[in-house]
Amino acid sequence: MQRTIDWDNGEIVIVDQCSLPHTHRILRLRTVEELVAAIQRLAVRGAPALGAAGALGTALAARLPDATEESVRAAADRLARARPTAVNLSWGVRQALAVLPDGADAVLARARNLLDADERVNRLASGHAAEEVLRRCPRRPLGLLTHCNSGRLATVAWGTALGVVWHLAEAEAVGEVLVDETRPLLQGARLTAWELAEAGIAYRVLPDGAAATAMAQGMVDCVLVGADRIAANGDVVNKVGTYGLALAAAAHEVPFLVVAPTSTVDTSLPDGTAIEIEQRSPEEVTRFAGEPVAPEGAAAFNPAFDLTPARLVTAVITEHGVRTPAPSC
Amino acid sequence: MQRTIDWDNGEIVIVDQCSLPHTHRILRLRTVEELVAAIQRLAVRGAPALGAAGALGTALAARLPDATEESVRAAADRLARARPTAVNLSWGVRQALAVLPDGADAVLARARNLLDADERVNRLASGHAAEEVLRRCPRRPLGLLTHCNSGRLATVAWGTALGVVWHLAEAEAVGEVLVDETRPLLQGARLTAWELAEAGIAYRVLPDGAAATAMAQGMVDCVLVGADRIAANGDVVNKVGTYGLALAAAAHEVPFLVVAPTSTVDTSLPDGTAIEIEQRSPEEVTRFAGEPVAPEGAAAFNPAFDLTPARLVTAVITEHGVRTPAPSC
Repeated sequence: MQRTIDWDNGEIVIVDQCSLPHTHRILRLRTVEELVAAIQRLAVRGAPALGAAGALGTALAARLPDATEESVRAAADRLARARPTAVNLSWGVRQALAVLPDGADAVLARARNLLDADERVNRLASGHAAEEVLRRCPRRPLGLLTHCNSGRLATVAWGTALGVVWHLAEAEAVGEVLVDETRPLLQGARLTAWELAEAGIAYRVLPDGAAATAMAQGMVDCVLVGADRIAANGDVVNKVGTYGLALAAAAHEVPFLVVAPTSTVDTSLPDGTAIEIEQRSPEEVTRFAGEPVAPEGAAAFNPAFDLTPARLVTAVITEHGVRTPAPSC
Repeated sequence: MQRTIDWDNGEIVIVDQCSLPHTHRILRLRTVEELVAAIQRLAVRGAPALGAAGALGTALAARLPDATEESVRAAADRLARARPTAVNLSWGVRQALAVLPDGADAVLARARNLLDADERVNRLASGHAAEEVLRRCPRRPLGLLTHCNSGRLATVAWGTALGVVWHLAEAEAVGEVLVDETRPLLQGARLTAWELAEAGIAYRVLPDGAAATAMAQGMVDCVLVGADRIAANGDVVNKVGTYGLALAAAAHEVPFLVVAPTSTVDTSLPDGTAIEIEQRSPEEVTRFAGEPVAPEGAAAFNPAFDLTPARLVTAVITEHGVRTPAPSC
């Protein structure tokens, strides 16, 4: 299966996520500048995929004929700052830079190892999470709800929270997946729905605002989401809308599981309050496919992410298994 | 100021809400069938405006040259069932039908009286609510958050929950209004933002999923919403997304005020659980301005409304003043 991000013949190859679900287009990125632009317009996105992008981009810079340590570190720094919130991007950059003294081939080898590890780690994490779902949720078939995209398009392959659905579908336990459309950029409607359709799993797209009533109507056995950064206490930063979903899940005693590789956990942060939340362009909200949907000149509040306190998270699940966060104060 | 819905020279005149915010278009409706179609595609919407539409439509039917009691009652029935959830529609029809024995002129007079009363009642209800906001929320200027559209476009004139903003702006107490865009039909981004822009009041549009983090960041002193039906115990049916907003408001101890005329209160219902929730077309979610945003054939969960239990409602405020609901069990 096509990886979401890969290395081929000296270039970074990505599935262009801006063109899905209509067109499955492959982009070849030849420079760090092209990669930074692709990251900023979200052609490649998702915390684990950004980790891979950080490492591969560093390899691109290291392999330039005129590369110096200084030029590679400068490029790595531009990459790491392309988006501020996901810790995986700078983590991938750091992993690759660590072997820079061994030369460009070593950097590339490290990056390719990270790509291989990503799929393995996500399969493991989502497998642990699937066991947790089966243990916590007795009803069959299961009604699952997810937000944004945490599938193979958010990773190198397989996926994190949506990877849980692949495991549960193999166990024939899935009735239906409710897919929050995830405004403003509709990663749920565009990407998660596309992955579920490809996999032949029953799903329905819903407005983000309909998730709470879906829970009230008993349609949801478990909420599954990924994460962009997790603090040491278990506070979770993820796509905007996750926090409201967690509040609704808690009100309905629906398990709220966060599935992510340990590279998403930022142990340098005791809790999530200090995490910088990326503010994106108002036009993502006030225009739609180029067309204005609000009055001329309308301002918007458009944070890319929000913070879900650990007390609302039933469990964070990584490749090392279930990690029940300590309650925050 | 142009009324949202009015009677002129034998025809019903409405502001076409499907064309806003780009075009302020006036439609003239000559038959009950045209009115039913306008209601179903939401060219006229909002519980109080639907009450007016029900009464005026009944007058249209009664004034036909070949009208019989039977034909008027049949037309009234089609009207009352045009949308199932808002109680005001059938209330307006009933009010007009009550004087049918007195002839078509009496029906029209009753309908026009309802229109005059609507503005008066909404000004009163929103005035009581404004006092309640000033009493409950000490910070100045105020950060207010609203969902969907409950302004003059949802009523004959003035508005209900958004009418509170007009009163508070007159008192120079408003800092900013946060406007939930309100997917899928974007009544917030399209209609509420348009009304606020026209009134020169500072506002920002936000994705519905960003409301909870706005509250967590201390941006919201009070949430103001209208209602489509209110049960005797204070359970509130309103635009989908309201329930999640109420959960978030409760978690942040932000007052959650529901502003509506008493015609929205359905005392025949002890609580909200039996209220029929209109399910609308999946294409409202899976397409945007005619363009697909989800994979071909995607299904959707698209309830028009949700149910907010009375325990999450700080107060229901009508033209008769503040009504603190009894806690539901």
